[in-house]
Formats: sequence, structure tokens, C-alpha cells
Amino acid sequence: MEIGVLTIGSELLNGEIADTNTWRIANVLAAHGFDLRESLTVADSERDIAEALIALGSRREVVIVTGGLGPTDDDLTARAAAQAFGRRLVLHETALRQVQDFFRRAGREMHPRNEKQALLPQKAIVLPNPVGSAPGFLLQANARSLFFLPGVPEEMLAMLGASVLPQLEERAGGSSPRCERVFKTFDLPEPEVEERLAAAGLPSTVQVAFGVEFPFVYSKFRAEGGDAEKILDLAEVKVRRALGSHLVAIGAETLAGNVANLLTGAGLTLALAESCTGGLIAAQLTDIPGASAFLERGAVTYANSAKTAWLGVSTAILEGEGAVSEACARAMARGIRQAAGSDLGLAVTGIAGPSGGTAQKPVGTVFLALSAADAEHVQRYRFGGDRGQIRQMAACMGLDWLRRYLATKLENEAIDG
Amino acid sequence: MEIGVLTIGSELLNGEIADTNTWRIANVLAAHGFDLRESLTVADSERDIAEALIALGSRREVVIVTGGLGPTDDDLTARAAAQAFGRRLVLHETALRQVQDFFRRAGREMHPRNEKQALLPQKAIVLPNPVGSAPGFLLQANARSLFFLPGVPEEMLAMLGASVLPQLEERAGGSSPRCERVFKTFDLPEPEVEERLAAAGLPSTVQVAFGVEFPFVYSKFRAEGGDAEKILDLAEVKVRRALGSHLVAIGAETLAGNVANLLTGAGLTLALAESCTGGLIAAQLTDIPGASAFLERGAVTYANSAKTAWLGVSTAILEGEGAVSEACARAMARGIRQAAGSDLGLAVTGIAGPSGGTAQKPVGTVFLALSAADAEHVQRYRFGGDRGQIRQMAACMGLDWLRRYLATKLENEAIDG
Repeated sequence: MEIGVLTIGSELLNGEIADTNTWRIANVLAAHGFDLRESLTVADSERDIAEALIALGSRREVVIVTGGLGPTDDDLTARAAAQAFGRRLVLHETALRQVQDFFRRAGREMHPRNEKQALLPQKAIVLPNPVGSAPGFLLQANARSLFFLPGVPEEMLAMLGASVLPQLEERAGGSSPRCERVFKTFDLPEPEVEERLAAAGLPSTVQVAFGVEFPFVYSKFRAEGGDAEKILDLAEVKVRRALGSHLVAIGAETLAGNVANLLTGAGLTLALAESCTGGLIAAQLTDIPGASAFLERGAVTYANSAKTAWLGVSTAILEGEGAVSEACARAMARGIRQAAGSDLGLAVTGIAGPSGGTAQKPVGTVFLALSAADAEHVQRYRFGGDRGQIRQMAACMGLDWLRRYLATKLENEAIDG
Repeated sequence: MEIGVLTIGSELLNGEIADTNTWRIANVLAAHGFDLRESLTVADSERDIAEALIALGSRREVVIVTGGLGPTDDDLTARAAAQAFGRRLVLHETALRQVQDFFRRAGREMHPRNEKQALLPQKAIVLPNPVGSAPGFLLQANARSLFFLPGVPEEMLAMLGASVLPQLEERAGGSSPRCERVFKTFDLPEPEVEERLAAAGLPSTVQVAFGVEFPFVYSKFRAEGGDAEKILDLAEVKVRRALGSHLVAIGAETLAGNVANLLTGAGLTLALAESCTGGLIAAQLTDIPGASAFLERGAVTYANSAKTAWLGVSTAILEGEGAVSEACARAMARGIRQAAGSDLGLAVTGIAGPSGGTAQKPVGTVFLALSAADAEHVQRYRFGGDRGQIRQMAACMGLDWLRRYLATKLENEAIDG
């Protein structure tokens, strides 16, 4: 099926904001096995919109239009559609009731100007908007279907799912499901992820795409048809083997979320001592609902006095080896674990830059330490990038240490048990 | 001048990635006083590209094309352009030298496949690519100019500035500079920002657009012509008066960055006690280079034991009024200030949800407290939204308290001095 998208809005052409609706629509369509053939963007100009509707309507069977359905003077889509298809603009009672209902439900008074949103081309089929005030509509002419949706992403997406997809599937004689699964890796360069997956012997019907969202690498798997889920399950077995312990999250999971789940599953508590990451690890973990069950406390110990008072780091270490050292990281991890009375203590100290580096300890030097009853690890790293990247990398490495420690522990317990 | 953009790439239409080149181009053009009239996206299909070039070339004086200039089989732009304009594809010596030079500079061997990048339509004018291997080119026909640039944003932007803009300016008979200034407000709803600015008596030559990036509202001001900077300076005086203390940042400034500057300017130190924000304030402040000059330490005190041990919050308060209370917030702020020996102590405690709310203290209830030698403030808030929004709002409110306190203090000192 030949599908085109038309996005309307001057703000998309004057550099103010980037169009994301086309990508959102393409994403939803792709998940249901439909391809987008072209996408066009024009400004809030009645002439430009009408011309674009005529051009797209002549080239494509289905056109999905977003934007320009609001109540203000620069919302011109309905009028332009009427002009393009030689129809009159009329007040649609169903549409008017929808607008009125929206304001009633929201407990707000309807501005007379909102009546304009019910002025639609003759013979338009009104599409309900479950989220906002603007009704959408469908125009059919010469075996073409043109769907008109609001530009607000939440409203557009709700109506795309409820009103557009069912009609596309009917037109196509049923849908051809397409499934996706995303695998997120950490601490493995993108080319190596690609190489490992290329050698993994994946089913040939699986499509793979790669992406980077610092500091993670994403591998996005796609399969089509009735067996799509089964094919991805099969692929996942091979992906897990190929990526090993670098695989930190699948699908909607996050590294921090998985650490939270592992902590809860193991029934262990954690305390944090962060210097160069300055609270980034704590902020990520406390973003997870229920974090109070496992996070006892966190210390952002920027000044040496804080390291001594709260973590018991000795003056000998601070003056001898310095605050950025293996000895200090170890003392911080032990100290926070003891102060909090928690099962685990994780510490980070380093030089995030841009200044503060030396020949022995250049910018990017970071020490991590993990203290537990049954284990103690300390390691020196040298991370690249700017201040933000060094901090992000150090925070994620700390979370990854927790994930690896907890996963191994739970596995061993399962074997022992 | 009528300018159109054509972006080429199947990955832009199958939901894999969102097109950002159109927005980048629009942004650069807008800054130089040029408007984009329409933008079109098609897949890597020779027929679709050729059709799009013919359509856009007939409607617009200038067309900027990006993508499809690489060495692989799905890079079809040059061939489609030759087809659309009835020209032969020929090997351009200048282009070939450019490709060869690129690999020589990079110290890499050139793959024979890269020769394809020098196969351009007859009479094409080669455009240098200072960043990558793909040469761009310009086709001129019927008083139309079509610029072909690579899709990689860095290469595209470099060539847009070096090769396209000068020609546009020549065509337009000189450039008409456009200046922009962004004003960021906090804790003032968007309609009220609009209303205040509407009543501010701004110069009529200034265009204003609004946007929201939670929890901030942006007002973007634009002026054109030789006096653009002066007009914006004049507008800024009125904007400052209209928005008053809700104006938290201008241009590239951030709220956290301005707090850091004020602390440094006042020569004061800070310590943080965060419960529901879990390190968000510390993470934002330590993101600023040089934060160690003013941030003494931060405590993420999730457990009551941490509030008692580190901040000296009494059991009487924790058991009587609870950890989310005015008394606890005050004790936390005083306690962290004393523990750190800092000039200022800021504390946040609240219920971010989704669970943990009660009838007396529903989800979103947050107490903020600021302790200083010359002042003490405590206030109860009720923030809306989900866990993430409540935490963001609480963190930004905390930063805003610091900003207001410090700005007033510095002002008073200036008056006294």
C-alpha cells in the first residue's frame, strides 16, 4: 500500500522545532507491517496545504495528515482540505459535540473560538479524539483515503491507533505483524557488537539495525509474519550467547532498573559514596519506584572533610595517595557500607575535568570500588570524552559492577540451592 | 526566495530514525534570513528520488538535497539526478581527486567502490566536502539551483555554510541577518508568560514563539535586519521587567549554571540533603566545571537512620511528624549545614510516588528548606505529574530557591557597598 504523510506547521520549517511526528507515524506503521513511501512538510499556508494535499492525493492511496486542526487563526488544514477537494466547509454536529464534551470532561469553559474546530469539509467522516479537543476527520475520494489528525503527538498517536490502523488493515486485508526487540550493551564498541552478532548465526529472516545512545550500544532486531515472536525468541538465545555479560538490558528495561530488580530479588541493601559522579548513580537508582527498599543512603563527598567525617577515609590516605586513588576508593566503599550498615557499598572517585588532571592522573582517571561481606573489588579506569561523558561512563560502570556482582551471586545461589 | 529541502533515506521512512537534517538546515537558513517553503522525504529508490527532484525543481527556485551520496549500492542520488535532468553520469576528475585526497589525509586506503562517489551528472559543479569522503554537487537548470549534500549532519552543515549560503546570499542580493534570544522561565504557567509578554509593550518588529521543556517555559525572540541585536537588547529590558524573578536563564545559560555562578560570585559554599530528589540537585550542580569550589557535600538520605546519623534529625521529629514534614525539612537543612560547615544548607523531603501517599500527605507533597546564617525558609509544596516530574520539579524548585536567595543577597550587598 502506498502511504504518504503530510505534516503541517510553520514552526517545522523555520528552524524552531524538528518534526518528530513523521518518525512516530513511521514507527507505528512499521510495527504493523506498513511502509511509508514519502513524507512532506509545508507551512501554515492555505495554498501550500491545498497544493500538497492534491499532489499527495494523486500519488498515494493513503495520506496521513497532521497539524493545523486547532482553534486559532493559523490552523488552516480543514479549510485547505475543503478547497483542495472542491467541498464546502460545514459545521459537523458530531464534531461539535466532541469538542463540547472535551471541555465538559475537563471542567473548563469552552471558548467560542473552539467551535471552529467543528467546521469540516462536507462528507468528512469525523474521527474521535480521546485525548484533546480537536476532532480528526477522514476524507475519501477516488479510492483514496486522507486521514486528518492533530499535530500534538499524544493526540495524534491515540487516533492513529484507534482510527487509522484498523482502516489500513482492512484495506490491506489483515495485518502482517512485525515484531521488534532491542538489546542494549555496555562497555563493548559498536563494531565489536556488530562483529559478534554477524558471527552468531542469526536466523536469516531477522533484520538488525544498530544505534548508539551514549554510553550504550543498541541492536534492534526485527522479524515479520505470524512467526515473528518465535523468530525473535530464537534469535535472543543466540544474541545472549554472542554478547555475554555485556548485554545489560532488553526491550524497555534499563541498566538502573535491572540493578534495582536484582537488589530487590537478592534482598540486599546498598549505600553509595560518589565523588566525581556527584549523585548521578543515586539519581538514576532513586528514579525507580520503590528504591527506598534497597537504597539506604548516598553520599556526594566532594570535599575531603566529607570523606573523612562520613566515610572515615584517613588523613594518611588523603594526604599520601590523594582523594583520587585506589586506596581512597576502597576506603570510601568500606566506609559507606559501615556507616550505612548496608550489605553493599559502592564508591566512585575520579577527575571529570576539564581541569584538575596531572601527568600521573590525567582527566578521565576514575577509581571504582565495591565492598561486600563476601567480596571487594577496586579498579582504575581511564575514560575518554568531556566532563559529562566521563561522569556518565563512570556512573554506568558503577551500575554495571552492581549488575554483574548481583547476577553472579543470584546464579551461584540458584546452583547451590 | 522559494527554498525546498529533499531528504533521502529509507531509514527516515521505516521508523528507524527521525530526520533531523531538515530542522538543522531550517535553523541555519533562518539565522541568515531565509525561509524554507517545504520539505520532502523519500526512500532510497531511484524512481522516487527522480520524481521528487522534478517536482521540487518545478516548484522552488532553490532545492537543498541531502543523503544518498555514499559509496554503497543504496546510494542512488547522483544517478537519480542525472535521470531527472536528462544528463549522463560522468566521472568528474575534481570529485575523484577530492575522494582520493580524503583517504590520503585520513591515512586510509581508498576502496575501489569509493570511485563511484565521483560519478556525477554532466555539467555538475563539484562542491568540496571538508569533513568526509562524499563530494557534493550543484546542478543548475532553468534558473533553478539544486544543491546535493551528504546526509551525515556534520558534513552537510559544513558544506551548507561553505558552499550553499554564499550562493543564496548572492541570489538574494546580500544577507539579512536574523538574531535570536531565548528567555527561560520557571514556576509560571505558559499562558501567563504569554500574557505578561503581550502586555509588555515589545517592539513590533520582534517575533515571539513559546515552548515548554518541563519544568521550564521558553520564550524565543527573533529580530531581523542590521539593527536586530539592538532591537533584542531593547526587548530584553522589557522582558526582564515583565517576567521579573521568574526569568531564570537567558540564551545558553541554565538554572544550575546560574546558581553555580552566583555561589562563586558570592564566595559562599553549599551542602545538600536530598531525600525524594535522590541526588538530582547534586548531579545538576556537579555537572558544572569547578563545582568543587562551592559544593562541600551532598547527602541522599533515603533511610531514617541516615537522616539521624548524618543530619542529626531527632527521633522525636521522625516518629512524631514524620520524615516528610516541615520540621524534618528544617532539621535536615540545619543539620547538613552544620555537618558540612558550609554557608548554606538546602534540604528536600517528599513523596515522589507512585505509592507512599496518604490523605494528609498525598503523592507530590514536598517540603523544601534553606538554612543560612542570615535566613531560614521552609515551605510545603504539592507538585503534580508522575514520579519523574515530581522529582524534577522539586529539584528545580530547590535550585530556584538558591538562585533567588543569592541574587537578592548580591543585590543588597551591591546597594550596601
